[in-house]
Amino acid sequence: MDSTLIPDIVVSRLPRYLQALHRMQEEGQNATSSQELGDRIGISAAQIRKDLSHFGEFGKQGTGYSIPYLIDQLQAILKVKQVWGIALVGAGDLGHAIARYQGFTNRGFRIAAVFDVDPHKIGSQIGGFVVQDMANLAQSIRENGIKVAMLTVPADAAQKVAEELVQAGIQSILSYAPVPLNLPEEVYVQYIDPIIQLQHMTYYLG
Amino acid sequence: MDSTLIPDIVVSRLPRYLQALHRMQEEGQNATSSQELGDRIGISAAQIRKDLSHFGEFGKQGTGYSIPYLIDQLQAILKVKQVWGIALVGAGDLGHAIARYQGFTNRGFRIAAVFDVDPHKIGSQIGGFVVQDMANLAQSIRENGIKVAMLTVPADAAQKVAEELVQAGIQSILSYAPVPLNLPEEVYVQYIDPIIQLQHMTYYLG
Repeated sequence: MDSTLIPDIVVSRLPRYLQALHRMQEEGQNATSSQELGDRIGISAAQIRKDLSHFGEFGKQGTGYSIPYLIDQLQAILKVKQVWGIALVGAGDLGHAIARYQGFTNRGFRIAAVFDVDPHKIGSQIGGFVVQDMANLAQSIRENGIKVAMLTVPADAAQKVAEELVQAGIQSILSYAPVPLNLPEEVYVQYIDPIIQLQHMTYYLG
Repeated sequence: MDSTLIPDIVVSRLPRYLQALHRMQEEGQNATSSQELGDRIGISAAQIRKDLSHFGEFGKQGTGYSIPYLIDQLQAILKVKQVWGIALVGAGDLGHAIARYQGFTNRGFRIAAVFDVDPHKIGSQIGGFVVQDMANLAQSIRENGIKVAMLTVPADAAQKVAEELVQAGIQSILSYAPVPLNLPEEVYVQYIDPIIQLQHMTYYLG
């Protein structure tokens, strides 16, 4: 992971600001305030101003933020003015849903290739992609300069596949497999596991 | 949200400990240490010991933790010794994948009912469930005492559906819609948006 002076918790909030700003823009809005943005997201206005101050001065006292300008700046900070190709590994139900998901557009990502090991799936088409044999994984990732992967394979396969991805040059992995991955420190890994989040919520249920 | 003396950040880590312990158990292991558990998850042993100490004394100096005992205790703390029925709203690609997901078993949850507004989907079967008309939502949730919902509807529909869920008695919502929900404070909401996590990672990419 890149060493940087900005706390990771601050970085983690920027995509949420960007998401809310996009939404405001879609709704026809042109300017906003840290107060309004905070009310939408459930974060205090002071926190938003403090987070943004790490990166520069984006608004004016009294007039607030220009939404297109702040979107542009946040996209640059998060490096999503470019479009990152994603290697999607695992063409099961969830991989299917991701391959067909329309929400990547304009947010900095597109699925670049879909892989699976299952001979019944290889060669089939999902969401406009032909599922490729995992045997082609390394070559395809290298040839296309892909740095980001989404992992939707079963838990038992996740570690091995993740190691293959890293060897092929993948630097960031978003894993849906419910198992912690053990990878070199320079690889950035995040997890999505709905059950982890559900269990977090049931703690608070009566 | 229940007021409690345990910091939420501590609570948020417990499901990850539980996940890793389940995995160790599946691999045939019977005891572990905070060091080993920490190495798996990428959290320091000291942090794990400190987190667990909020809830009691679960291990012995030198011999570590009994895995079945610690699983049992964490399940009790997170209230997942019982099985929570989930109302799944939105029978698109993602709803489909969730309805068919086998990973809920033994982790405290089961899908209890699936809803959609699309007349083409209502009455069809996904993952063993007959998709019900959203018009039945409130009655079904009340009759079955469902408190947890997963939301896989488009962004534009999410706020309205979430309000209906809350009115029907839902207390916790895990939303996949890429939009912040504005709900009464006592409703616990979490979000899953892969793009938020991908954008967090690209910040660190060269």
